[in-house]
Amino acid sequence: MKRYELLANEIASSIQSGVLARGDKLPSVRQASISRQVSPATVFQAYYLLEARGLIVARARSGYFVNAGAINLPSTPAPVIEDELTLTEVDVSHLVFEVLESTRNKAVVPLGSAFPSPLLFPLARLSRMMTSAMQEADPWSSLDNISAGDAELRRQIAMRYLIDGLHVHADEIVITNGALEALNLCLMAVTRPGDTILIESPTFYAALQSIERIGLKAIEVPSHPRDGIDLGAMEQAIVMHQPKACWLMTNFQNPLGSLLANDKKQTLVEILAKYQIPLIEDDVYGELYFGERRPVPAKAFDHAGLVMHCGSFSKSLAPGYRVGWVVAGKFVKQVERLKLTTTISASVPAQVALAKYLQKGGYDKHLRQLRNVLMVNQIKFVEALERYFPKGTHLTVPQGGYFLWIKLPDGINALTLYRQALKSGISIAPGPIFSAQQRFQGFIRLNYGHMWNDKIEDALVTLGQLIQSQQAPH
Amino acid sequence: MKRYELLANEIASSIQSGVLARGDKLPSVRQASISRQVSPATVFQAYYLLEARGLIVARARSGYFVNAGAINLPSTPAPVIEDELTLTEVDVSHLVFEVLESTRNKAVVPLGSAFPSPLLFPLARLSRMMTSAMQEADPWSSLDNISAGDAELRRQIAMRYLIDGLHVHADEIVITNGALEALNLCLMAVTRPGDTILIESPTFYAALQSIERIGLKAIEVPSHPRDGIDLGAMEQAIVMHQPKACWLMTNFQNPLGSLLANDKKQTLVEILAKYQIPLIEDDVYGELYFGERRPVPAKAFDHAGLVMHCGSFSKSLAPGYRVGWVVAGKFVKQVERLKLTTTISASVPAQVALAKYLQKGGYDKHLRQLRNVLMVNQIKFVEALERYFPKGTHLTVPQGGYFLWIKLPDGINALTLYRQALKSGISIAPGPIFSAQQRFQGFIRLNYGHMWNDKIEDALVTLGQLIQSQQAPH
Repeated sequence: MKRYELLANEIASSIQSGVLARGDKLPSVRQASISRQVSPATVFQAYYLLEARGLIVARARSGYFVNAGAINLPSTPAPVIEDELTLTEVDVSHLVFEVLESTRNKAVVPLGSAFPSPLLFPLARLSRMMTSAMQEADPWSSLDNISAGDAELRRQIAMRYLIDGLHVHADEIVITNGALEALNLCLMAVTRPGDTILIESPTFYAALQSIERIGLKAIEVPSHPRDGIDLGAMEQAIVMHQPKACWLMTNFQNPLGSLLANDKKQTLVEILAKYQIPLIEDDVYGELYFGERRPVPAKAFDHAGLVMHCGSFSKSLAPGYRVGWVVAGKFVKQVERLKLTTTISASVPAQVALAKYLQKGGYDKHLRQLRNVLMVNQIKFVEALERYFPKGTHLTVPQGGYFLWIKLPDGINALTLYRQALKSGISIAPGPIFSAQQRFQGFIRLNYGHMWNDKIEDALVTLGQLIQSQQAPH
Repeated sequence: MKRYELLANEIASSIQSGVLARGDKLPSVRQASISRQVSPATVFQAYYLLEARGLIVARARSGYFVNAGAINLPSTPAPVIEDELTLTEVDVSHLVFEVLESTRNKAVVPLGSAFPSPLLFPLARLSRMMTSAMQEADPWSSLDNISAGDAELRRQIAMRYLIDGLHVHADEIVITNGALEALNLCLMAVTRPGDTILIESPTFYAALQSIERIGLKAIEVPSHPRDGIDLGAMEQAIVMHQPKACWLMTNFQNPLGSLLANDKKQTLVEILAKYQIPLIEDDVYGELYFGERRPVPAKAFDHAGLVMHCGSFSKSLAPGYRVGWVVAGKFVKQVERLKLTTTISASVPAQVALAKYLQKGGYDKHLRQLRNVLMVNQIKFVEALERYFPKGTHLTVPQGGYFLWIKLPDGINALTLYRQALKSGISIAPGPIFSAQQRFQGFIRLNYGHMWNDKIEDALVTLGQLIQSQQAPH
């Protein structure tokens, strides 16, 4: 990253975290140059970049002022804690499918979508990589890539783990049709129908669907919007229900955006190891951090081989390629064989394209740009929510990813809002799709992974009005 | 197809079916020109092509003579019929995985492989199609192609059905990660763990693995190597065991190579409709026919929407792309939703490449060439088996596909032969992997989908010797 980008990101972070508030004056170029020990040109470029992003404005003869952020509104909603954790036969209603369908209509503003905008990905460069990789490919590779996956791609993924300080051997990695297949294969590897699975609440709805499809039972453990799963409640649930596996997201959880701290990850892994419970770690958002460095996965603390770490390129590089993977620990053979009997392998062109792209070293640069866009989008969104949503709205500002988990003012029903919004051409993800027991009736998840524009701002204005009109009758 | 190719194929068929035997003299160019009402040049080109394929030889001043075929050896082995059909909890042993592993070593002659040689596919042309299709693609297509699949690809597949006389709407088609995923989704759509599934015996081992994984029970109905499943036994099994679905291959069954006649397909569909049992029709070899036209699927006789017709490009066009599909009849919504919760969608680059390839019209030409190669290979194989395998070997010559199902001489054990062959660098598929009850101990399946060469001929010589050495001690 260039020096001015570093500086700009640092300032953007300060805006995001509320250190710098709307209207605050930035230090002059000269002052900043001295205090930061960079050239005035670097400061100027950083300010120029921030201005282009709409985060600061220049006022004639006065200097630069913060034009965004000032996140006064959010307060962290308390996690939903039940007196007693209840075991649930998962029966995800048609609602999830209905919500998914609604995001596929291009006329609809996709705030309920699970994907960031495809315009944020280097699709042209990827397809050039695919062309050259396919030209060079040995025809026999179409058979070699069956089963565990393309050898070079697995090597590249192992190298990325190494950079993050994890020693993963390429042989432990199984390439899959996206992370969702990886998660499903892991689940099948360690359960039989009728078994109980420990999940967090709220949880990614696809986990609920998988649990339902395989005929498992779910035990939901509350998760905090900022810090993630409640480990005390988790251990209590383990003792009481003896789950066969635990499935959760450690970094920028969907829908919460929560991030488990390193020591909490370590404790999580230790507790599960104590009871010999495999952890299915869904880490598809880990690359989308706004902090200094990528948060480590819980897998980093795994000595027993019980953690199956699932990743993907779908959220960070190539949504339609459908390439994910799992570092499957001691379950690698089972996972590989289950894949062989379900889909055999991931698509070869997509695998070789990604291997080549990772080799050529464009990924980190792309990720920096993507994170910048998401961070700026987040600030814009939070600012708009503060402006357009009525009092009583609560949210937590996550440190990565592209979801905001929003507690609506008391008495507002997320499903009613979802249906009203859809009539106005806006999709949102209502809270109940993230719970086996259809909790979170007063919550919604918004996706800020699409470029900020008037249409999105208008949609947020409309949502605010719809909430107010739900309040009005009282 | 050019006129001389037509003529050459016709003569090749006559050799294959035994109408023309080794040593038979072909009509002179002049005679043939008159009787066939084609130009002498056409006859000459046809003979030249057949000579190049090694099927006929020119002898100086005598004319052309048949140099292959003469399939005297094969007699159809009787299907294995049990007095009583027994219900089996499927427990496919590690043997299947062991056999699959053995075919992945490139030093091994791949007679046990499930795939034809990748050299037979237009991979370069396909990757050019992918390049241009990806350049033209709207970035949003990466999201649109989620779920049911690429709209153009589904349209192209529907059009191919139309050519074969089937009216299939693109909306009934779900694109999958290869046919195996399609088959698995169909199975999940119509069963719950503990249910019974009717399959044929021998059957494709992946069916056994799926049944085992999902926790179903299998009822095996004998299948005839030439005509396919025994419909009488099937109805008896239905009445006795009330299966929830029937899974079978109608065209060039793996491993038998059997082909259900049209009236038999119709009766099959009628019987199943009478008992309201869904048919999962695996038709991945249908395009590889050696006859006049593509055999119709059983789906053609389906009025109740109970037939789920599964196809794929993996065996006929693009093995590593992992693109298959299902025309799912009344179960289309369930299948689509199950896919959304397991792998979400097939890889977009592979889908758009295939759509473009089908659009540009290279597929039929490629298929003609592929069928020619397979037909000639088959003749070579059968001829070699006749020469190198001991008396008591039986086989049926299928009318398509690339598998030969071979009954070894009495007393020869397929598993012993499999292990001996592997030591000699040859993989074969032993009969027991095609049965939940590990029947077919005296059978092997050979793959003739690789270009005939000395290495393959040597492998068949070795196999013949290994069989003889098993016989010798007695």
